[in-house]
Amino acid sequence: MTDNIEWLNMPIAKRHEEARRAAEARQQILTKPPGALGFLEHIAIQLAHLQGRAQPRVQRVHIAVFAGDHGVAAEGVSAFPQAVTGEMVRNFAGGGAAISVLARELGAALEVINLGTVNDPGPVEGVMDYRLGPGTANFVVEPAMTERQLARALNAGRETAERARDAEAELFIGGDMGIGNTTAATALGCALLKLPPRQLAGPGTGLDTNGVARKAAVIERAIALHGAHLGSPLEVLRRVGGFEIAALVGGYITCAQMGIPVLVDGFISSAAALVAMRVRPGTETWYLFAHASAEPGHRHLLAALEARPLLDLGMRLGEGSGAAVAVPLLQLACALHNGMATFEQAGVSGKL
Amino acid sequence: MTDNIEWLNMPIAKRHEEARRAAEARQQILTKPPGALGFLEHIAIQLAHLQGRAQPRVQRVHIAVFAGDHGVAAEGVSAFPQAVTGEMVRNFAGGGAAISVLARELGAALEVINLGTVNDPGPVEGVMDYRLGPGTANFVVEPAMTERQLARALNAGRETAERARDAEAELFIGGDMGIGNTTAATALGCALLKLPPRQLAGPGTGLDTNGVARKAAVIERAIALHGAHLGSPLEVLRRVGGFEIAALVGGYITCAQMGIPVLVDGFISSAAALVAMRVRPGTETWYLFAHASAEPGHRHLLAALEARPLLDLGMRLGEGSGAAVAVPLLQLACALHNGMATFEQAGVSGKL
Repeated sequence: MTDNIEWLNMPIAKRHEEARRAAEARQQILTKPPGALGFLEHIAIQLAHLQGRAQPRVQRVHIAVFAGDHGVAAEGVSAFPQAVTGEMVRNFAGGGAAISVLARELGAALEVINLGTVNDPGPVEGVMDYRLGPGTANFVVEPAMTERQLARALNAGRETAERARDAEAELFIGGDMGIGNTTAATALGCALLKLPPRQLAGPGTGLDTNGVARKAAVIERAIALHGAHLGSPLEVLRRVGGFEIAALVGGYITCAQMGIPVLVDGFISSAAALVAMRVRPGTETWYLFAHASAEPGHRHLLAALEARPLLDLGMRLGEGSGAAVAVPLLQLACALHNGMATFEQAGVSGKL
Repeated sequence: MTDNIEWLNMPIAKRHEEARRAAEARQQILTKPPGALGFLEHIAIQLAHLQGRAQPRVQRVHIAVFAGDHGVAAEGVSAFPQAVTGEMVRNFAGGGAAISVLARELGAALEVINLGTVNDPGPVEGVMDYRLGPGTANFVVEPAMTERQLARALNAGRETAERARDAEAELFIGGDMGIGNTTAATALGCALLKLPPRQLAGPGTGLDTNGVARKAAVIERAIALHGAHLGSPLEVLRRVGGFEIAALVGGYITCAQMGIPVLVDGFISSAAALVAMRVRPGTETWYLFAHASAEPGHRHLLAALEARPLLDLGMRLGEGSGAAVAVPLLQLACALHNGMATFEQAGVSGKL
């Protein structure tokens, strides 16, 4: 692992305007009323734009789930015990978690990256060991990460994206696991968007009303503590983020630099996506958005990202699960774009 | 083809309460916060409820596209010429239409049923000939169908559903093709829901504002003409419906009688679903809803059906395309339900 993060300044890959124009033109001549496939037409055009292919495709999907624990869990901000993070790392690799099932169904590659859990799960087959400590520090007391931990977490994400590139991935999905991470993501959102914690805080894995109020108060204290140091998005990430969120940021920026489309999952991923676009503007040109989370703060993040997600199914699991569920929609959008006959080919009359 | 429609009165299949309870209990012990998979949990439970299986599944999907022309097209209510209906019948069978591509991608069975187009497409391989005439009559002038045509269209739908049963289909999707059929579906909605045509009429395949106003006026004239005879849902269907809509009604009722879950597509299909539930109450217990159409009247039909659709992608193509796009969501909901580990199996701690 390296501490060097100069690569953050490398240029973002350019999209392919000619492929976009060709895809737009093709959608007009397929045997359907123009626009009748709605958002699926937009998705096919966007993928052509990103991939520079007349025939966009999403067959090779690379899913990476980043896990890490959060010191702020000590403040009682989660409905589940911290041990769950490490236990779920085993479950991801063992095939029993939601994202494991989804990756299998989709035939997608699934990487599990342990960035530091409170309970050391020991060596687990199928889990990559990038541990940076037994979770972050409690950000109500001190910065969540040291500069070195932040740099290494960013690099863990970069290396994951490089493996996706080596596997010729046509789509990158980053997932998250970390008890307490909706608190970190909410703090990131509040710091970057200058919104009050009470407006963004939500139940996460299942807090009741009192729990949500406590969570908002914890974030208020954190913002008060770090307030003078929240001018730079990287410093915001270091102070109130988390290992897995920093890895997502590194992964997203690297994908945008290498030209791999990113399908952003839910609340945690969107917080990372927002940080990434603030750290390296242009990263957002490589984003597609999978779903609107049930976590109430998500709509604020989506608005800041100018995102229009494909799905709104009330999901709030993380792990990349919402993004994985949206993959078939991208695949069908491509199949329709590539496989439908034109009016001329099919001998079908056009508009009156 | 038979004119006998006494089967309409046969009982609706009962759902499986024990399987529903077992599925609900299972969702509580899978390794995720309860409810975190949102609507996908509901879908898995609903499919278990309908199929009576601990492990619901949607692998064998039967898609039937019903095509027919509409006499009311003479009133200038469509942006496309009537010849398109017959031309698209060829395109469905030829593999170039949206639903053809989607059925291929899903590995679903696709039937194309011609109930009567203005242009006789001649014998086409892969098209079932159920022609009842060169389209319906213009319902601004007279009832769209004779009693015999209505009975035969209903039976065409029934026979399709019987073929789905013989193929051991786990899901039935009915699609529609018919220039002018958003006018018929809107008229059905107005007659059944007692709503003014101006509130329900929309652009269909692409009418401009003037076109939509003309369409609403045409429907107003039809409602005025048939008003005294719109007390029975079957008579409403005969007077202002269409061949393909009547076939959908017959198909839906038969599926509900035989216990095959129905995934309802968009505007036309929902009009048929509403007629079917009015003709044979209980049919609606076998419905799932795929998507909210861009056609503005659809939300009124969905409200009357108490439907919560899976997708809202601005689609407005018909053919069963919106339903086909939603199939992978049902499949993934089943895979998660069946394939995820429980807290106990995975050794993951529960809620605090």
